[in-house]
Amino acid sequence: MEYSFSQSTNALTSSAVREILKLTQGNQVLSLAGGLPAEDSFPIEEMREAFNRALDLGPKSLQYGLTDGYIPLREWVASRMKQKHMNVGVENMLITTGSQQAVDLLCRVYLDEGDVVLVENPTYLAAVQLFQFRGIRAIPVDGDAEGMDMDDLARKIAQFRPKMVYVIPTFANPTGKVWSAERRLGLLRQCREHNILILEDDPYGEIQFDGEAPYRSIFSLDEHPQGSAVVYTSTFSKIVAPGLRTGWAIGDSRVIQMMVKAKQAIDLQSSTIDQIALHQLLDRFDLEAHIGKIRCSYQERMEWMHELLTREAWTGMKWSKPRGGMFLWVELPEHIHSEKLLAQAVKEGVAFVPGVPFYAAQAQTNTMRLNYTLLDRENTELAVSRLGKAFAAYSQVVAG
Amino acid sequence: MEYSFSQSTNALTSSAVREILKLTQGNQVLSLAGGLPAEDSFPIEEMREAFNRALDLGPKSLQYGLTDGYIPLREWVASRMKQKHMNVGVENMLITTGSQQAVDLLCRVYLDEGDVVLVENPTYLAAVQLFQFRGIRAIPVDGDAEGMDMDDLARKIAQFRPKMVYVIPTFANPTGKVWSAERRLGLLRQCREHNILILEDDPYGEIQFDGEAPYRSIFSLDEHPQGSAVVYTSTFSKIVAPGLRTGWAIGDSRVIQMMVKAKQAIDLQSSTIDQIALHQLLDRFDLEAHIGKIRCSYQERMEWMHELLTREAWTGMKWSKPRGGMFLWVELPEHIHSEKLLAQAVKEGVAFVPGVPFYAAQAQTNTMRLNYTLLDRENTELAVSRLGKAFAAYSQVVAG
Repeated sequence: MEYSFSQSTNALTSSAVREILKLTQGNQVLSLAGGLPAEDSFPIEEMREAFNRALDLGPKSLQYGLTDGYIPLREWVASRMKQKHMNVGVENMLITTGSQQAVDLLCRVYLDEGDVVLVENPTYLAAVQLFQFRGIRAIPVDGDAEGMDMDDLARKIAQFRPKMVYVIPTFANPTGKVWSAERRLGLLRQCREHNILILEDDPYGEIQFDGEAPYRSIFSLDEHPQGSAVVYTSTFSKIVAPGLRTGWAIGDSRVIQMMVKAKQAIDLQSSTIDQIALHQLLDRFDLEAHIGKIRCSYQERMEWMHELLTREAWTGMKWSKPRGGMFLWVELPEHIHSEKLLAQAVKEGVAFVPGVPFYAAQAQTNTMRLNYTLLDRENTELAVSRLGKAFAAYSQVVAG
Repeated sequence: MEYSFSQSTNALTSSAVREILKLTQGNQVLSLAGGLPAEDSFPIEEMREAFNRALDLGPKSLQYGLTDGYIPLREWVASRMKQKHMNVGVENMLITTGSQQAVDLLCRVYLDEGDVVLVENPTYLAAVQLFQFRGIRAIPVDGDAEGMDMDDLARKIAQFRPKMVYVIPTFANPTGKVWSAERRLGLLRQCREHNILILEDDPYGEIQFDGEAPYRSIFSLDEHPQGSAVVYTSTFSKIVAPGLRTGWAIGDSRVIQMMVKAKQAIDLQSSTIDQIALHQLLDRFDLEAHIGKIRCSYQERMEWMHELLTREAWTGMKWSKPRGGMFLWVELPEHIHSEKLLAQAVKEGVAFVPGVPFYAAQAQTNTMRLNYTLLDRENTELAVSRLGKAFAAYSQVVAG
């Protein structure tokens, strides 16, 4: 039997990076590569009670449920969204298998092969891969610390006539960047003018380190929910636990209902019992206090990594201290190719993600993303010191 | 904001049937429509213990896991598949969000827009919808009680040059049909000869009523797993519980690994804790005894519905007693259009699925699918009697 895969699988060819990272699984390599939450933040005992209560509700916890999701969970999320100036009802909301699935569903119902999506550069690598897998052209827009460059956005809109813009405006992956209010409004204005849908991906918005008021979502700055130019997606992965694979999307009910129809064909629905257990948890849980603890712990870990990197003081290395989220984005001296550095780092027993796969085009090869949430203090120190050794070894080779 | 959906959403337009069935939710309408397992078959207390034990394993039960699925669960499935003459390893297997997702993943990695899939006629309506949503042409092959007609299969292969054939050879949805061994081998021979992949969907194979040896899967009759012309998919939905949304696909490792890459982009992975809990359940559970009970109970319900239909004795109605599975496929007198009958039935307080959406083409409008697994004895009796009233009322209108 000769297998002949679809053309779209060309976008799925395994990257060199993924192959290297595979080698790190299950051995002694310390990983700064993933986007994994700290495991000591998981509310294990509360989840145990929640699953018990879910099963107390009887067989419905194990039966098929609605494609758009368990209604009490959607009501809970709607009420939380309202606190964040997003006045939505259950009909504007769909529960998904992580927010990743929301990106896939929206692509499938809104974009055809050959359509253009504008993206930040760099941006979330799995979103870029998903666009490519769907045959969509992801075109990067220039940006700075405040968000996308509004002039370049206007140029790219004129040149490429995109149907969608994909952004992570709050503690972006991989850069940790926060868009200014002005840029958020600017994006909204241009998109409304040209009838372009915005997909606002917000998995990290709750993980804010400063004591300021939360940054307003772009969705909340627009008309909402009906007629909104924005579909907003978020997840419980970073504030409760990722293993439940529960995220949500909100938007105009016509868009959401089309995503629901697609989901019905694709996988019928996400896990019933996980949704019911999550609702049982949230119903009694002090989520604010829990998020507060996560913020403190992640800020501490971020500060610690910042301190360690500062101490190491490798020549020509630059980074900005993130105001939230899970990642520290590092610019290395220009002569350093971070994919090659990764090979050296894995030998030393530490892994990270090189910057290249985060770029839809014009990749900067001297960049890397470090995750600071997974490892504890001691292991972070060990990881950064191993990284230092790799950096020194690599620099020597390059110099030699 | 003007929304403009992708072309593929044309395949998702809500059917009249779905709209009618929506009206039945949450009220007093008895449903013979869904494919829902009997809720008294769910092992609630065993699942409770299993979730507890999963959480005893610590934070990994709530953390991200492997895209291809929890290894001990895959090992368990592999060992069960071996008992059924399918000698596969974990590298030949992918855990999916129900077997429905396996169909979607295989479509996405194996078929391009415009490609042809041959299907039984009628066949699983959500598979047909999924093919259409992907822009794939689903072409029906004639068949009889033994399976696809081998001559028509040969003709359709020559005419349409399909890349795939989709079949449910054991207790098919919606017909309850079981393919003969000869037809299984015939399909395999023709597909191997023309390098066509077979997608064998087997959600109901375990629900066998007669005491015979289990019917051999087409996958088990082929070379396996490497080089197999078959990708086989099944699920825990019918033998444990559907709310866990856990299914699997097995096949050649190159095909499976391509599906894994697609799943990584689409939703990263299915629920970690559901997979671990399911493994904890299966590890201590007498699954054989449990399946035995389900078989008995479903056979009893099927016999009861058969008896009730026989008693009602509506003129011109025909059906075959299924040897397993969850559905009874009914042919009505030719002048009866079952979608119109449904509207009448819902007024009487009973719902079913009309046959039309199960046909990729050449639909027989005088057919309907009745589910016999969900309702208990009393409600089944009430449902069939309401159906009788609807039938009488409809016949009068037609006669008048």
